[in-house]
Amino acid sequence: MAMNGRKSALVVLLCFNWVIGIVVARGIEDYWSKRANLIHAEKKIAFGGDISLTKNEMLTNRTLMSAKLKEIQEGFSDPNKFFPRANFLTVKNKIEKSKVFQIIKKMPKGALLHAHDLGTVSHEFVLRNLTYRSDLYVCQSEGGLKLMFFKTPGKNCHWELLSELRNTPAKEIQINKRILEEMTMMTDNPAKAYPDGDAAWAKFQSLFSFLFPFITYKPVFEDYFNQLLQEIYDDKVLYLELRTVLPDIFDLSGRVYKSLEVMQILNSLSQKFVAEHPDFLGIKIIYAPMRHLNQNELKKHIENAELIKESFPEFLAGFDLVGHEEKGGTLREFAEQLQVLGQKMPFFFHAGETDWYGLSTDENLIDAVLLNAKRIGHGYALLKHPKVMEIVLEEKIAIEVNPISNQVLNLVDDLRNHPASILFAENYPVVVSSDDPGLWGAKALSYDFYEAFMGLMSGSSDLRALKKLAINSLLYSTMSDKEQSKAIQIFQKQWEDFLLDVAEMENKEFRLSNNSVD
Amino acid sequence: MAMNGRKSALVVLLCFNWVIGIVVARGIEDYWSKRANLIHAEKKIAFGGDISLTKNEMLTNRTLMSAKLKEIQEGFSDPNKFFPRANFLTVKNKIEKSKVFQIIKKMPKGALLHAHDLGTVSHEFVLRNLTYRSDLYVCQSEGGLKLMFFKTPGKNCHWELLSELRNTPAKEIQINKRILEEMTMMTDNPAKAYPDGDAAWAKFQSLFSFLFPFITYKPVFEDYFNQLLQEIYDDKVLYLELRTVLPDIFDLSGRVYKSLEVMQILNSLSQKFVAEHPDFLGIKIIYAPMRHLNQNELKKHIENAELIKESFPEFLAGFDLVGHEEKGGTLREFAEQLQVLGQKMPFFFHAGETDWYGLSTDENLIDAVLLNAKRIGHGYALLKHPKVMEIVLEEKIAIEVNPISNQVLNLVDDLRNHPASILFAENYPVVVSSDDPGLWGAKALSYDFYEAFMGLMSGSSDLRALKKLAINSLLYSTMSDKEQSKAIQIFQKQWEDFLLDVAEMENKEFRLSNNSVD
Repeated sequence: MAMNGRKSALVVLLCFNWVIGIVVARGIEDYWSKRANLIHAEKKIAFGGDISLTKNEMLTNRTLMSAKLKEIQEGFSDPNKFFPRANFLTVKNKIEKSKVFQIIKKMPKGALLHAHDLGTVSHEFVLRNLTYRSDLYVCQSEGGLKLMFFKTPGKNCHWELLSELRNTPAKEIQINKRILEEMTMMTDNPAKAYPDGDAAWAKFQSLFSFLFPFITYKPVFEDYFNQLLQEIYDDKVLYLELRTVLPDIFDLSGRVYKSLEVMQILNSLSQKFVAEHPDFLGIKIIYAPMRHLNQNELKKHIENAELIKESFPEFLAGFDLVGHEEKGGTLREFAEQLQVLGQKMPFFFHAGETDWYGLSTDENLIDAVLLNAKRIGHGYALLKHPKVMEIVLEEKIAIEVNPISNQVLNLVDDLRNHPASILFAENYPVVVSSDDPGLWGAKALSYDFYEAFMGLMSGSSDLRALKKLAINSLLYSTMSDKEQSKAIQIFQKQWEDFLLDVAEMENKEFRLSNNSVD
Repeated sequence: MAMNGRKSALVVLLCFNWVIGIVVARGIEDYWSKRANLIHAEKKIAFGGDISLTKNEMLTNRTLMSAKLKEIQEGFSDPNKFFPRANFLTVKNKIEKSKVFQIIKKMPKGALLHAHDLGTVSHEFVLRNLTYRSDLYVCQSEGGLKLMFFKTPGKNCHWELLSELRNTPAKEIQINKRILEEMTMMTDNPAKAYPDGDAAWAKFQSLFSFLFPFITYKPVFEDYFNQLLQEIYDDKVLYLELRTVLPDIFDLSGRVYKSLEVMQILNSLSQKFVAEHPDFLGIKIIYAPMRHLNQNELKKHIENAELIKESFPEFLAGFDLVGHEEKGGTLREFAEQLQVLGQKMPFFFHAGETDWYGLSTDENLIDAVLLNAKRIGHGYALLKHPKVMEIVLEEKIAIEVNPISNQVLNLVDDLRNHPASILFAENYPVVVSSDDPGLWGAKALSYDFYEAFMGLMSGSSDLRALKKLAINSLLYSTMSDKEQSKAIQIFQKQWEDFLLDVAEMENKEFRLSNNSVD
């Protein structure tokens, strides 16, 4: 009996343990499946999660993701090796050596939707080409360096021929160094040079003051603009919407070309470029005067915008206001006039390019959506305005994110803190642009795609997210339906070439590594 | 006829202009009302938007908001004057002079829900009081400074009596400077001293290695803990949930006190403090071993946690794992064991204390909610996980935000980029805590409330948001219903006193300014 009792007790105990074992095992199985579902659900709703890859795309994706993972792992072990956390000005050369960057360079990127007239061409071209033209004079005054084209220079400054100042190699190096300092934000120590946004903006605005006088010389302006198209074309961009103040340009005969004429020049150049490059779709213009103005000045710009629209109904995409948003006029002040203009052309307002929260600059986001902006430039503070976010989603207002610009202009330090991470996590209508790449040593669009892909998106975001960036840029452009379907056609062809290109790159690497083994 | 025709035309034109005028006016009226509605809607859903102020509260709010607005305006004009954008280590003294900070210091704050055992007492007390005890020896080796209490020091190091090393004022200043360097992160140049999170964490962990050996001396441990209660009590905190590794403590007889005994010591001290301070509700303990462990080591901690829970069912609030989250064990690895423990006590996991996105550290957030964490420590990466955010809202899982800690440990530079801004914008269940204030020159809770109020919340967030922080801290604590209703009773009394206190402060200022005018 006692034995039997013990046996029964043992059996009961064994059974109990067995049942508990099953319950625990079930519990943990259940846990893993819930976990997998949650992760899957987040990937599904994330940017690019709605895209399926073809077999060829999967191969390219494997190459891309193994390079991405390697970079992340290196950066995890040594923070100095993770570039998006450092200021772009200090890691540009390192980024260029990244395999992910190499792949992104090859990738067709669709449209460049947020770029400014005198900030988009690489500094190398401006320095090495434009400043070597004849008739370019330099004046070194207390206010800094000035460059200007003259037939005969005026007496307002001590003008010297730049070519003469470069008449020895040593002098050439010296003056070029000074020119470079005046025309870009490049520095080894950005934290010291630009300790805050105000300091960064002061320098940034001085660059335009330096560039404007000599780039608005008509032959140079035309070459600058051609080079702009060439650089973005080489970077696999097929279409551009350019924000410009439409500056007066001049020639040496003293003739000044006003905005309507400048539009005509830009339009002709664009058409010529398209004729020579059938896989380029051309450009449209966003007329974008400086926002530091009063109601009367705005009134004149609006009248001008209306005039331009009449003459260039297709070529003019719409209207924006630019400049240091925190210190300039607000959309609220101008709402009454803008509301009327909004019936005649779309808006592409800069809004919320700020770290402040609850001040007039981030409130520009509210006015931007109430004024029915088609896209919003930067929208850095958007996340702090949940009701505006709802409208952005409903109305499909694209947010033009410019990662490097935001970092160089001191909105954010480590790009992993850029709020657009969250827009990507929730699949908001985002496009990535480059703002003024030439002013900080970048070029065209690839650098910003790299930073977005490595720094803003999840480690698991892959080729689908990059493809989505390109597709969004076409979708949220102001191209007509006809233009858009042509763009998609071109893009698809480029995309197939890109897949082959990456495969070829892999093969070459494989052959090289095999040869080196032999 | 012609005249009549012209007249009619004129009338029609006037009518037309009049109608257009009305339409435009209607349009803009409509615009302003839409705009006001949108702003109102965002304020309504923001943190504290559901709270209504009494007349007395409105008076206090006016004082608070005029001070806040003044500071923001000054900071907008001169970025150096806006403290949340600078590293706390460089602006602590300036914050202390802020009127907003003065008001926050007076304000009852409810509970402190995220604070660690050896990081919470101010450095002044540790240096000026604890290190002046008898029997404290110092050893200066290559590895740095060590402090330790002995009856007779061992031979393992060149131990000298600290009091003897302080026997001249000059030597005292010198050795105190060195001690301070070993026990806090304070430095004039944090960007240089801690260029990245790894460097900051290396220093941070070294502080604990320095503090542990001598603070775990029983009489000192007890005084440390008493001081901790006194400092938070003085800062208008009425209850504490303390994370502790429950270290072995020792006395000079060689006796070692293990975790159950340490719990008993803490419990007695808490009860004694409560008896002496009837408007203090005491503490509960979150047992929080280091996360750098293997499954076996975790098993032992879990068994220990279960033992402790049996002996202190009320006093032990729950379980957590602590340490550098990026480099330590993940919740995923430990999920199986933790799931079982979770049936016996609540979890308060550190999760997502990282800038990375899509790696194992931010995935801890997924495991934290799947393991039914009651609250989440930091949750810095939460915004990057929209599905986890949904669960956090549904299950009312409070996020313990520690602004200064995140800045000093290098997750974020300018606090206006802290992601909790968005949690405030959307009224997530947030509490603000201070993590380890004593290790970076802060004290208790006011400094973190200040940074959250000025740097993370909207410029328009007011007394309602601060009150909400306090109320949330009671609501999301593990106090029993009975304890909670007592806490609310005490809080309400303190709140009334606070309103009077601010009114008195205003009166005094008014009298002073009037006197100075006379």
